[in-house]
Amino acid sequence: MMTDYSQFKVQLKELSGLVETRLASGLSGVLIPDDLLKSMEYSLLAGGKRIRPVLCLSWAGMLGAGQDMVLDFACGIEMIHTYSLVHDDLPAMDDDPLRRGRPTNHKVFGEAMAILAGDGLLTHAFYMMTGTGLPAEDVLAACREISGAAGPGGMVGGQVVDITATGSNNIGLDSLKKMHAMKTGALIRSSCVCGALLARSTGAGETDAANSAAFGESIGLAFQIVDDVLDVTGDEKSLGKQVGSDEFLNKATYPRFFGLEASKRMAQENVDRAQESLSGYSGKEKDFLEDLAQYIVDRIS
Amino acid sequence: MMTDYSQFKVQLKELSGLVETRLASGLSGVLIPDDLLKSMEYSLLAGGKRIRPVLCLSWAGMLGAGQDMVLDFACGIEMIHTYSLVHDDLPAMDDDPLRRGRPTNHKVFGEAMAILAGDGLLTHAFYMMTGTGLPAEDVLAACREISGAAGPGGMVGGQVVDITATGSNNIGLDSLKKMHAMKTGALIRSSCVCGALLARSTGAGETDAANSAAFGESIGLAFQIVDDVLDVTGDEKSLGKQVGSDEFLNKATYPRFFGLEASKRMAQENVDRAQESLSGYSGKEKDFLEDLAQYIVDRIS
Repeated sequence: MMTDYSQFKVQLKELSGLVETRLASGLSGVLIPDDLLKSMEYSLLAGGKRIRPVLCLSWAGMLGAGQDMVLDFACGIEMIHTYSLVHDDLPAMDDDPLRRGRPTNHKVFGEAMAILAGDGLLTHAFYMMTGTGLPAEDVLAACREISGAAGPGGMVGGQVVDITATGSNNIGLDSLKKMHAMKTGALIRSSCVCGALLARSTGAGETDAANSAAFGESIGLAFQIVDDVLDVTGDEKSLGKQVGSDEFLNKATYPRFFGLEASKRMAQENVDRAQESLSGYSGKEKDFLEDLAQYIVDRIS
Repeated sequence: MMTDYSQFKVQLKELSGLVETRLASGLSGVLIPDDLLKSMEYSLLAGGKRIRPVLCLSWAGMLGAGQDMVLDFACGIEMIHTYSLVHDDLPAMDDDPLRRGRPTNHKVFGEAMAILAGDGLLTHAFYMMTGTGLPAEDVLAACREISGAAGPGGMVGGQVVDITATGSNNIGLDSLKKMHAMKTGALIRSSCVCGALLARSTGAGETDAANSAAFGESIGLAFQIVDDVLDVTGDEKSLGKQVGSDEFLNKATYPRFFGLEASKRMAQENVDRAQESLSGYSGKEKDFLEDLAQYIVDRIS
C-alpha cells in the first residue's frame, strides 16, 4: 500500500523553501569577488532536494527548537554537501560533465574556479553555522559533530576509499558498506544529530542524539541502496546524469552484490529501522520524518 | 642596528615546538584512510615557520590565556594555512612542482589525493578548533572570525583575484593591495585576533581585539612585501622554490611597482606600525611579538 504523501509534500516544500530562500541570501553580506560568487551560487542554487538541511530542521523542530534559529546551521550543512559535489565532479576525480541535468561547475567556470568555489563553500559553511543564534555550547557541539562527519574520518575519507576502489573488481561488501557509511552516510547521519544537539536548550538529551543518529544512519543507507538501484534502472532524463556510469566504471554497487530485488528489500528494511527510532516521539515533525523515510524507497517501488 | 634575536629565537623554537608536537598527533584519534593520512601529513609536517599559530598563541598568552588551552585552535589555523598551499600548488592553479624544497603534494600523491588532502585539512581544522577547551562563546567567536578570514571574502577570494590577475599586465596597485590583504593578510590578521578572542575569559576586550587586528594587518603586509622582494633577490636554495617565477608569470609585485629600495622601506614602515599597536602591553610575549615583527624585514636587510 502506497503512503499518501500529500501532507508530507506540503511540509517538504515549506522546509526546503525556507532553506532555498536563506541559501539565496547566505552569500551576501560578505564581499566576494564577482566570478567566485557566480561559481559558488551556480552550484549552491542548482536545486536539489535539500534533504540534509531538512533533516536537521525536522529533528530540531521535533525536539522543540525554533526552526528559524536552526536555519543558518542547516544551510551551512547544504553548503558542505554542495562543495563535496563540486570537488567530486572535477576532472581529477569523477570527471563528470553533468550534475542535476546541467554542466558541472568546472565545465562552466574552469577547474581552478571550481576548486576555489568548493573551498569557499566549505569555509563559508562554518561562517554560517557559527553565526547560529542558539546557546554557544550547543552550536559549538554541532560544529564539532559536523566537522567530524565531513572530514577525513568521514565524507572526505569516504571519497578517498571510493576513488581508490574505482576500477578494482574485487572490492568486498565490507569495503562497500564502509565507503558508503563514510562518503554519504556520515553527513546525512550528522545532519540529524546536529538537529538534536541544537535542541539541547529546549530539553533534548543523549537519548535524542542517539535516536537521531540511528535514524540518520538507516535512511542514509537506504538512500545509497536506492541510488545504486536507480543507477541501473533509471533513465538519464529523470536523474540528470549519465546512467550506467558507475557500472561502466566497474564501481561496486548493491545490485552488483545482491541483485535488484534483494537490494530493494534491504532498502525497505533500513527504512523500517529508521521509523522504529522515531517511536518515542509525536507531532507533525515525527509524521514528516516517518514519511520522508518511506518516500526514499517509494522512488523505486 | 640589528636586533639581538637570541631570546626571540629561544621563544620561537619553544612555541613552534609546541605546535609541531601537537600537529604530529592532531590527526590521530580519528580513523583516516591510510593513503589520505599520508598525504595530509606530508604537507602538514613539512616544516614551515608556523607563524600563524605562533601569533595566535602569543597574543592569547600576552592577554593572559593559558597557551595549552589555545594550542588546538592554533594548530587548526596551521591546518587551514597548509590546505591553502596544497590547493594553490595544484596543476589547475599555480602548477608548482616544489614547495619548501620538496615535491608538492600532487606530485607525490596525485591530483585527486591532493585535492582531498586539502579538503580534509580544512575540515579537520574546524574539528580541532571546536575541541578547544575554553568557554564556548569565545571558541565560537574565534571560529566565526577565522572562517570569515579564510573564506570567499578573505583567503579564497584573494586566490581568485590572484589567478584572475595572472598574465594580466595592467593590475593596478589598489588591486595588488586588495589581493594581498585577502590572500595572505586576512589569515595572518585573523590569527592574532583569534588569540585575543580566546583570551576574553581572562579579561581581554574590544580594544585588545582591535590592537591584535592592527598588529596582524601590518605584519601581514610587511610579510608580503618581503616575500615579493625575496622573490627577486633570493636564491633557489634558500627559498626552496623556483626563483623569479612570479616575475616570469608577470605577476604584480611590490618591487615591480616601487623598485627594491622603496619596497624595503615600506616593509619597515609596516613593522613600525605593528610595534606601535603593542605599546600598551608588557611582558615576554610583548617582547617576542615586537621582535617577531622586526625579524620579518631583517630577512632582507
